[in-house]
Amino acid sequence: MFKAKITVTLRSSILDPQGKAVEHGLHSLGYQSVSHVRIGKHIELSVGVDSKAEAERIVREACERLLSNPVMEDFSFTLEPLKKPAHVKG
Amino acid sequence: MFKAKITVTLRSSILDPQGKAVEHGLHSLGYQSVSHVRIGKHIELSVGVDSKAEAERIVREACERLLSNPVMEDFSFTLEPLKKPAHVKG
Repeated sequence: MFKAKITVTLRSSILDPQGKAVEHGLHSLGYQSVSHVRIGKHIELSVGVDSKAEAERIVREACERLLSNPVMEDFSFTLEPLKKPAHVKG
Repeated sequence: MFKAKITVTLRSSILDPQGKAVEHGLHSLGYQSVSHVRIGKHIELSVGVDSKAEAERIVREACERLLSNPVMEDFSFTLEPLKKPAHVKG
């Protein structure tokens, strides 16, 4: 079993109005030194397979088919082994 | 100048309906091995100060005051030095 941490970000050429709004909010709070705010998604999930290669294939496909918009977004992810929870025996 | 990469996640005790919807979508696409989907935010921003300690203070305050909801969410971040862009002279 593996835990995947996925980051989905807007491509740099795509305008990010949400990031602009947050930047404006931070400036209003007095944080004038903050700039280039970009907002993306962080997704964590577990993959119940034994092989890391298989987990990687599943996560990559999930990102391409559902979790990101390949026209506007890029994704990256890390995988780490996860022990089965104690209540899942065998 | 520093670049901050911030991750804001829902606390594990808080239900995540968006994550449940994504999990359901992945199962519908055939990825039955995926579980425990949780959705958070990924925020990137630049902080135009010289000291790393000062950048850390600003990002921490920004997270506490605007970027996260301290009742429901946790945040973590990394800071890395960033060269000034070439068009910003002096």
